[in-house]
Amino acid sequence: MLTADYYINGILQQDRIVLSKAITLIESTRKEDEAVANDVLKACLQINKQSKRIAITGAPGAGKSTFINAFGQHLITQNFTLAVLAIDPSSSASKGSILGDKTRMEDLVSNKQCYIRPSASLSHLGGVAYRTRETILLCEAFGFDYIFIETVGVGQSETAVKNMVDLMLLLLLPNAGDELQGIKRGIMEMADIIIINKSEKENDVIAKIAAAQVKHAVHLLSASEKDWSPAVLNVSSIEKTGIEELHEKINSYFIKMHTSGFLTHNRNAQDYYWFEETIQQELQYQFSNNSNVQQLKASLQEKIKNKEINAVQAARFLVTNFLEN
Amino acid sequence: MLTADYYINGILQQDRIVLSKAITLIESTRKEDEAVANDVLKACLQINKQSKRIAITGAPGAGKSTFINAFGQHLITQNFTLAVLAIDPSSSASKGSILGDKTRMEDLVSNKQCYIRPSASLSHLGGVAYRTRETILLCEAFGFDYIFIETVGVGQSETAVKNMVDLMLLLLLPNAGDELQGIKRGIMEMADIIIINKSEKENDVIAKIAAAQVKHAVHLLSASEKDWSPAVLNVSSIEKTGIEELHEKINSYFIKMHTSGFLTHNRNAQDYYWFEETIQQELQYQFSNNSNVQQLKASLQEKIKNKEINAVQAARFLVTNFLEN
Repeated sequence: MLTADYYINGILQQDRIVLSKAITLIESTRKEDEAVANDVLKACLQINKQSKRIAITGAPGAGKSTFINAFGQHLITQNFTLAVLAIDPSSSASKGSILGDKTRMEDLVSNKQCYIRPSASLSHLGGVAYRTRETILLCEAFGFDYIFIETVGVGQSETAVKNMVDLMLLLLLPNAGDELQGIKRGIMEMADIIIINKSEKENDVIAKIAAAQVKHAVHLLSASEKDWSPAVLNVSSIEKTGIEELHEKINSYFIKMHTSGFLTHNRNAQDYYWFEETIQQELQYQFSNNSNVQQLKASLQEKIKNKEINAVQAARFLVTNFLEN
Repeated sequence: MLTADYYINGILQQDRIVLSKAITLIESTRKEDEAVANDVLKACLQINKQSKRIAITGAPGAGKSTFINAFGQHLITQNFTLAVLAIDPSSSASKGSILGDKTRMEDLVSNKQCYIRPSASLSHLGGVAYRTRETILLCEAFGFDYIFIETVGVGQSETAVKNMVDLMLLLLLPNAGDELQGIKRGIMEMADIIIINKSEKENDVIAKIAAAQVKHAVHLLSASEKDWSPAVLNVSSIEKTGIEELHEKINSYFIKMHTSGFLTHNRNAQDYYWFEETIQQELQYQFSNNSNVQQLKASLQEKIKNKEINAVQAARFLVTNFLEN
């Protein structure tokens, strides 16, 4: 078994093989890996590097992979490094739909400045989210300039991903009317920058109309606490237009958020979110996996059915019993 | 202090003053009232009477109180008895908006066949919901033919109320287009009967168009597990038209649900819901009110801020510590 020092040194030396092993370690559900994983995470927390953490969200078909390929390539030519991760809490139905098609990231896959890590094995949202979050911590300690987190903009994953990143990028298609219906309003509200992707030259007119419509819709949303009104940009990932404007917009976002202190404030708030979130999940986990609870619960359910006890009383009794033993 | 027997006997003898006192007892947050309240609830559970539990929901302005007055009066003339309760989890802003205006129920207030109980003191949703649910149990043991639960159809209260009743009645206004936007889709899906209220004679045309539109919208919703497609009816609570048709529709609903076994199945499922729901809330309550937890939590938050510990690790440590002490 490898030591924590092995992982930590490897990450400090920017050894990508060790990084991959470290991610596998924190993804492990084996009890015996836990202590080392915790030590690695703790050490990584104290390494004082900061990446730009950017979520890239959008409905299936919005062209996320192709966009990441184009934007990633732009960053690489400017000598930046980047990690691409995925969060995919959805059921096995969409397994492989996310980051699965690496052929759409052909320019990135074999590039040394880019590290791509597909989604961890499917599990409940909490599980996937923890691992993605902890993978971000490892990648940040490794020293990537940018970390992209790709996510499908239709599920519950958005709140989780919003609480891991500094900037939310939402990809829409030029047929905005239809598109907006597929995207929950709450996701529009979370976006810092909205990209009308597939704004190819031949789509110029509808792409600009779409951008105007989205700008109008976004304008109606209430101003965010961070004093930033979401930018709406036309991008063609295929023709590679609008990429530089996007990069400039991202830069000005980070400068503004850094200056205002929002970046730090936000990361602290995110830590707090994960603290509270994990408390809930852990309490629930310990409770449901307690064998006394399981037995007593079954017998209480029987009594509830027979009207021998009120459901609320039964629940209180069960919790008290759990806490006293 | 009054004994459990005092309350139980009073309820069995249909003494409305004792019923009111019993509701006040279960609404009490005083520790010393708990044992008696539990005994009363337990006894009431075993009294084998069954009311028709009906939720009446709709946006503010839909005319819920006036409707309850008209429908209640109809039931009274047919020699039925009814209790009218309210669930209002919203903030103090709307305090008094629900059931506050008893003048709209002038025909019911002084009638001996009708018992009206305004909302309990405002508290978190869970608290109000428990009390409303337990108030239903008391009223059912008392022997009312009908129990109405009035709720504002815009908040989180709908899932709670759905899990207390046999039938969900949704009130809409004739200007369905606007109205539908104010009502969440999920609430439309929960409704068993939809009433276009304020279908006065002078509104006849738009009221019928509205009913047709709502019927169409409802038709698009997927069929429910109970094999019932929601009925849409025009009612004027002022001119008292459509009330008899509504009563017939409610009767046929209950006959159908009784025959299919859904009524019993549903009540068992509801008990299970409250069991699970209370477990969550109780675990959370015991955890947050533990003084060790409060101290340790504060110090862990400090450590998280200083990057001395990862938020997820800190949460696990805190939960473990709570469970071991």
